[in-house]
Amino acid sequence: MLIVMNHNATQADVDAISRIVQEMGFRAEPIPGSERTAIGVLGNHGYVDDSKILELPGVQRVIHVSKPYKLVSRDFHPEDTIVDVAGIKVGGGCRPVVVGGPCAVESLEQIVKTALFVKKCGGDMLRGGAFKPRTGPHTFQGLREEGLKLLAVAGKESGLPIVTEVMSPDTVGLVAEYADLLQIGARNMQNFDLLREVGRIRKPVLLKRGMSATVEEFLAAAEYILAEGNDQVILCERGIRTFETATRNTLDLSIVPLIKELSHLPIMVDPSHATGKRSLVVPMAEAALVAGAAGVLVEVHPEPEKALSDGPQSLTFPGFEKMMNEIGQLTYFLQNR
Amino acid sequence: MLIVMNHNATQADVDAISRIVQEMGFRAEPIPGSERTAIGVLGNHGYVDDSKILELPGVQRVIHVSKPYKLVSRDFHPEDTIVDVAGIKVGGGCRPVVVGGPCAVESLEQIVKTALFVKKCGGDMLRGGAFKPRTGPHTFQGLREEGLKLLAVAGKESGLPIVTEVMSPDTVGLVAEYADLLQIGARNMQNFDLLREVGRIRKPVLLKRGMSATVEEFLAAAEYILAEGNDQVILCERGIRTFETATRNTLDLSIVPLIKELSHLPIMVDPSHATGKRSLVVPMAEAALVAGAAGVLVEVHPEPEKALSDGPQSLTFPGFEKMMNEIGQLTYFLQNR
Amino acid sequence: MLIVMNHNATQADVDAISRIVQEMGFRAEPIPGSERTAIGVLGNHGYVDDSKILELPGVQRVIHVSKPYKLVSRDFHPEDTIVDVAGIKVGGGCRPVVVGGPCAVESLEQIVKTALFVKKCGGDMLRGGAFKPRTGPHTFQGLREEGLKLLAVAGKESGLPIVTEVMSPDTVGLVAEYADLLQIGARNMQNFDLLREVGRIRKPVLLKRGMSATVEEFLAAAEYILAEGNDQVILCERGIRTFETATRNTLDLSIVPLIKELSHLPIMVDPSHATGKRSLVVPMAEAALVAGAAGVLVEVHPEPEKALSDGPQSLTFPGFEKMMNEIGQLTYFLQNR
Amino acid sequence: MLIVMNHNATQADVDAISRIVQEMGFRAEPIPGSERTAIGVLGNHGYVDDSKILELPGVQRVIHVSKPYKLVSRDFHPEDTIVDVAGIKVGGGCRPVVVGGPCAVESLEQIVKTALFVKKCGGDMLRGGAFKPRTGPHTFQGLREEGLKLLAVAGKESGLPIVTEVMSPDTVGLVAEYADLLQIGARNMQNFDLLREVGRIRKPVLLKRGMSATVEEFLAAAEYILAEGNDQVILCERGIRTFETATRNTLDLSIVPLIKELSHLPIMVDPSHATGKRSLVVPMAEAALVAGAAGVLVEVHPEPEKALSDGPQSLTFPGFEKMMNEIGQLTYFLQNR
Repeated sequence: MLIVMNHNATQADVDAISRIVQEMGFRAEPIPGSERTAIGVLGNHGYVDDSKILELPGVQRVIHVSKPYKLVSRDFHPEDTIVDVAGIKVGGGCRPVVVGGPCAVESLEQIVKTALFVKKCGGDMLRGGAFKPRTGPHTFQGLREEGLKLLAVAGKESGLPIVTEVMSPDTVGLVAEYADLLQIGARNMQNFDLLREVGRIRKPVLLKRGMSATVEEFLAAAEYILAEGNDQVILCERGIRTFETATRNTLDLSIVPLIKELSHLPIMVDPSHATGKRSLVVPMAEAALVAGAAGVLVEVHPEPEKALSDGPQSLTFPGFEKMMNEIGQLTYFLQNR
Repeated sequence: MLIVMNHNATQADVDAISRIVQEMGFRAEPIPGSERTAIGVLGNHGYVDDSKILELPGVQRVIHVSKPYKLVSRDFHPEDTIVDVAGIKVGGGCRPVVVGGPCAVESLEQIVKTALFVKKCGGDMLRGGAFKPRTGPHTFQGLREEGLKLLAVAGKESGLPIVTEVMSPDTVGLVAEYADLLQIGARNMQNFDLLREVGRIRKPVLLKRGMSATVEEFLAAAEYILAEGNDQVILCERGIRTFETATRNTLDLSIVPLIKELSHLPIMVDPSHATGKRSLVVPMAEAALVAGAAGVLVEVHPEPEKALSDGPQSLTFPGFEKMMNEIGQLTYFLQNR
Repeated sequence: MLIVMNHNATQADVDAISRIVQEMGFRAEPIPGSERTAIGVLGNHGYVDDSKILELPGVQRVIHVSKPYKLVSRDFHPEDTIVDVAGIKVGGGCRPVVVGGPCAVESLEQIVKTALFVKKCGGDMLRGGAFKPRTGPHTFQGLREEGLKLLAVAGKESGLPIVTEVMSPDTVGLVAEYADLLQIGARNMQNFDLLREVGRIRKPVLLKRGMSATVEEFLAAAEYILAEGNDQVILCERGIRTFETATRNTLDLSIVPLIKELSHLPIMVDPSHATGKRSLVVPMAEAALVAGAAGVLVEVHPEPEKALSDGPQSLTFPGFEKMMNEIGQLTYFLQNR
Repeated sequence: MLIVMNHNATQADVDAISRIVQEMGFRAEPIPGSERTAIGVLGNHGYVDDSKILELPGVQRVIHVSKPYKLVSRDFHPEDTIVDVAGIKVGGGCRPVVVGGPCAVESLEQIVKTALFVKKCGGDMLRGGAFKPRTGPHTFQGLREEGLKLLAVAGKESGLPIVTEVMSPDTVGLVAEYADLLQIGARNMQNFDLLREVGRIRKPVLLKRGMSATVEEFLAAAEYILAEGNDQVILCERGIRTFETATRNTLDLSIVPLIKELSHLPIMVDPSHATGKRSLVVPMAEAALVAGAAGVLVEVHPEPEKALSDGPQSLTFPGFEKMMNEIGQLTYFLQNR
């Protein structure tokens, strides 16, 4: 629910309403605007009786929001949110970032070598999975805490911030010790306890779109994180599940400009998981940037043919270097036109 | 990996191989058959070198299983599994069961009234959500532990076993105190930590198919539970997400006979969530039983128009009673033809 | 647009309005009801100005129909339509029919042998493709006119009505010479010129749902046929395209009761194309009948392993016979409960 | 089937084999390469016995092609096909083209005004529907032949080549009199008689991808056209049908680079139909060009709010002009980097 104030409402009016909203058992979030203030009402389960509020001084009208999200909405927060990942700015017209690294951390040599190469080519962050969600229980599930430690070494040696996935509420604390940006994977986009848990930490979160999540569900999932107080959220499109099997998933690039209309949060794109095919990664990374993405996540591996997971979609080192050169030129063009 | 023994292999041969498999760091699961024994190898991450095993006495051949599941497979376990829910048998040619109840537990009166009515009409179990996964954080999330307590009262008064959802690993213990059958919802089908956790308890589990999960992924999710030692798993088809919006989801009934070919686990059907439309629930419940389902879960509410969630798909009391009569006749026909 | 008359409006009022509608360039279709008459306005392209009509004597109100169909709607025609296929009644509570036969007509021996067997087992009609829509141009495209002639022989020898596909407007006349029921395939569901053409003949039409057609589009396609004057249309659900690849298509059985609510036209089900897997055909055929289908189309072939198309989904002769026995019992149960 | 010759096979060998293939009832299509010649065998229905061919002089091996297409495949034709539309070159590294115009031709003023504006802004061709496929029969179906005549006037006044849809085999001749590029719409992608008919004319064809067509089916549909002798085919991605309803369809941009790997035919993109939302058209048009599309089709209308169809996705004149400027810069960047 959104309480819109008259343009001549006073701060005292706003405070009074906030107090009453709290007495009703909800949270009040004043949203100052250039013309008037609005007060977001959070924490209500279902419809709230607004008769009491409508009579209060300064109230212009009450909007019952039908969308399952408010805090992530641009209506509530017209300015772009810029997320700060250990000093790297994401979103809001900043230079798009490139996050590179292997699907899974496999060894110290592999991850350090990759980190140094990503850094050398101009990459902004290092990605690598320590906890790996896998379809079946009988395959490689990641090096887990050992993997986090290797990532830390690679981050230190390269100077790159670390992006890695967290899969369950009880490991959020552990992962947050090592990661600069905590990734919620597609399968966990509606793991609401996990969303709430990362909402309570003070580190930025990369939220991947679920395989069959609508844009509305995607934004509502982000709302869980913001509702707990963490507004440092980057969204990530990584392909949806459709009838088409020629690509691993179907990259739904149109939602990049759409989400930029609906939300103030930055949105990145993962062309590696979306396409599942090395030769399609670079064209789709470039298309994502032109469409307005705040950055791309790209898999790169020193020896993709030996990778324990997702080899066919990982760029080789020379492939990554070539992409970085092309992206560099494209970004320069886009930022200066 | 599956090690198939000669039909004249001795127990000592089987033991010797199991020991060697364990020395390789894996788990060996002997699967005795009428003709020969096979040994399932679990816990391997990727391909296992089989040269050492092929030379051992009693070994006929080694099958590298490409499916991401083994324990749930009928190849490994040809007989139907019958799951026992507080004395109610599910699967394996037993009379199909009906689980009835509201989407969410809302009050003591609501749940007790419903439980007594379900019992009176011949229903087998009571369903009701205490922990509710909801798209956005600003809607009714269930009564949580209070809801579990109300379910317990309703279960006691009606004599019906309780089916309710568990959403996170750390509440499995709590939910298991009250529930006779723990439900994993569609959004959590690939919440692997949760699957592992319910794999470690000694209560049966109802695993709902994810909104866009393939049959292979569905069975692989069940495999996580069995791999931890809990083989009391009932699968549940509840509709998949497709382009069609005339129904809430698309009930994929063909997978009922398909899964019965592939797996020994019983499969039930939830026509309420699948269709989202009251008038379609009974025809689809009956179609499910004819297709071979081990039972159906149906939403029923004393006052669907006042339900806090999923009212439009809940049967009224008279509607539920009518369905029970029709299903009773159909079941009698099916069991006696 | 629908003009609803007062309950005391006279026939003269209705006639006057019909005349005015025609002067506006549209077609008027009076729809007498037990309480009042309504007049359907057909042929308008987009919104029609209703100010003139609202002032006329006898008019109660004007409903601007937002659905893209009217004639197929149950609102316009509350009674079930019963389609007569050479004496076999389909729909409206009549005994469900079974249409059997091979995917494609391959030879005189094949089709006659099959027809006689279908008849012997109690089947109601013979299906077989003479014109075959195939994904690529380099595969068997059917025997075409020769196939129609073989079908005619098989129909004569067995006494079964013939169901066969027509693929283009210019062969409608030719196919109608041989067929008792003209099939429009899934790929042609929105071939509007073809729909119009079969709307102009006086033979019944079997319209298959397009692979990704919504229920609304399906009914709107049927509307094209009725709008040309042919109301002898049977709808057919044959599976939709989804992400799931374990079955050839996803049988969307829930639309059977849904379409019976929305439309007066009978709906049949094709479990062979829907599942693509022999072992799933019988359970899904039975599920279709319980869900209220007016009949099923099932592929049967004397030697499925040698079939030129769709062998894996065709029943063998013994399989078909077994199904007919089971369906017979089920139908008896359903008609007498 | 593909017969691969030895690198030292003579022309006489090739001729001899072609003769024998023809005697077998098939068509032989020699495909000269830099190293060796291959002979495509067309017109076979199913598997061909190759024992006879394997013994002939000069034959290296026989490949039984499993794909349902050959002529459109890059294996058969490694060089890019450049399609010539009344002097405008499409594909093969030529400057990407922009086709602009309204969804439907509505009046002389509307189409001429639009044509002149598209030309003034630097557009390459004029699009406009005269025959319109519509979901239901009761809405505007296009001006038909009258629309073609208006297009001809607009084409003449502006100097732009005309792109317009043909919906049935019997109007191909008529449409080809007026159109420079004949469009096959998404609903007709598998209208095989129509494909064959446009395969027999000497005008280029724009083939739109079906709503739920896989890449393989899309290429196989184009194969029907090439198999009749017309190799002037431009493919067009226009969005596929998925669960997502936030956009009209889901633009599947990844298939642009994928199809360029698989086929020699140029592929264009229609961001207007794909997204259905004006504000997404320009970002997606630019993304398409970066991904390697040979051009874009964009809807533009002098008064979108009054358009008889697809107003919400049509650009206004100022919007189109702005897009042309941006595309111009982007194209210059892409062609010169």
